[in-house]
Amino acid sequence: MNSEMLIRITRYYRALNRLKSVGLEKVFAHNLADAAGASAAVVRKDFSQLGIHGQKRGGYEIPDLIASVGAILGKGGSQNTVIVGCGRIGKALIHYNGFEPDGISIVAGFDNDPLVYSDTSQPVPIYPMSKLEETIKALDAQVAIITVPEASAADTYEKLVNAGIRGFLNFSPVTLKSQRAEGLPPLIVHNINIALELEQIFYELQFPNTVR
Amino acid sequence: MNSEMLIRITRYYRALNRLKSVGLEKVFAHNLADAAGASAAVVRKDFSQLGIHGQKRGGYEIPDLIASVGAILGKGGSQNTVIVGCGRIGKALIHYNGFEPDGISIVAGFDNDPLVYSDTSQPVPIYPMSKLEETIKALDAQVAIITVPEASAADTYEKLVNAGIRGFLNFSPVTLKSQRAEGLPPLIVHNINIALELEQIFYELQFPNTVR
Repeated sequence: MNSEMLIRITRYYRALNRLKSVGLEKVFAHNLADAAGASAAVVRKDFSQLGIHGQKRGGYEIPDLIASVGAILGKGGSQNTVIVGCGRIGKALIHYNGFEPDGISIVAGFDNDPLVYSDTSQPVPIYPMSKLEETIKALDAQVAIITVPEASAADTYEKLVNAGIRGFLNFSPVTLKSQRAEGLPPLIVHNINIALELEQIFYELQFPNTVR
Repeated sequence: MNSEMLIRITRYYRALNRLKSVGLEKVFAHNLADAAGASAAVVRKDFSQLGIHGQKRGGYEIPDLIASVGAILGKGGSQNTVIVGCGRIGKALIHYNGFEPDGISIVAGFDNDPLVYSDTSQPVPIYPMSKLEETIKALDAQVAIITVPEASAADTYEKLVNAGIRGFLNFSPVTLKSQRAEGLPPLIVHNINIALELEQIFYELQFPNTVR
């Protein structure tokens, strides 16, 4: 499966869960096409390639489709995620309610500041950085969202790798690189640099013909 | 200029401003290479392609380089940005101090909730959505960050287009598509779907060999 197809499949999965939550039982390729920014023909081709077949009169049963697509996406296992750095952005993500429909659970936050980790009013517990390794192991978390300041990003990344985290969504402006230890699969690192995105938008506005 | 080169150039620009802010006067290609995740040879090639040449004994004067790279990136014009939807994520971005070094100014927020837009404790004013068009024109803002809930994203996008916004950084889970009106350059839309990023990370961890 190439990455474009993976993006579409994860979009189908999200759309299916939403359609189910509003009471729909059946879905057609063109419904999912809108959600994934693809054509209905592409949706049908994706499903057929994955061995998922529609009904004779067209359409797919939503519960069946959720089960099939979920199995392909590896749902059912732990999708426990921690947030490291509980400043404003970290806390906003702790409160974000857009993860649950995708089966992703934010299970803990970590911060260096005693005022932050003693705050029990948050929806998940916030622990001091010194408890990183034991808490991550106890919670069976595999993915970390990094929302620490630039100066602590590289150090935080190292600590998380040592604590057994394998997947990273990094919002710090430092670009973190995937590492590969012998005998282990590579770390998965997605970097989101918000300031860089804005700069690129300004650039593309100014020079619309230089960027495709 | 292709988009990889643009990403490198914006990274050089950021790194240069940081190096300047810590008092450095001269920079070498390998300093910038680290910041951009490229080799020193690529840095030198980029600069040479842009008509920027180093000194005889190697290295570049930082102030000159900032001026040259800034001119290429179209710096100096208005980089005024507004934030639409001042919930937790919107407010975190209003307070984020990582934009200023790049010359990007968050100049206003907008929200529908009177409790939010009557809050004068924020670093920039928050206006009601009904003032969107006049405020955007008065502030000469060109780019908007969309941090509204999913259900209002499409409507907000339309309103912003009508108010004259040309560039969008969209954090809502709805994928917004670029539009093209006759005689106008295309809108620039960058979508960041945080939940989707996390899902892809979990998927790539589970099936490391299916995604390159």
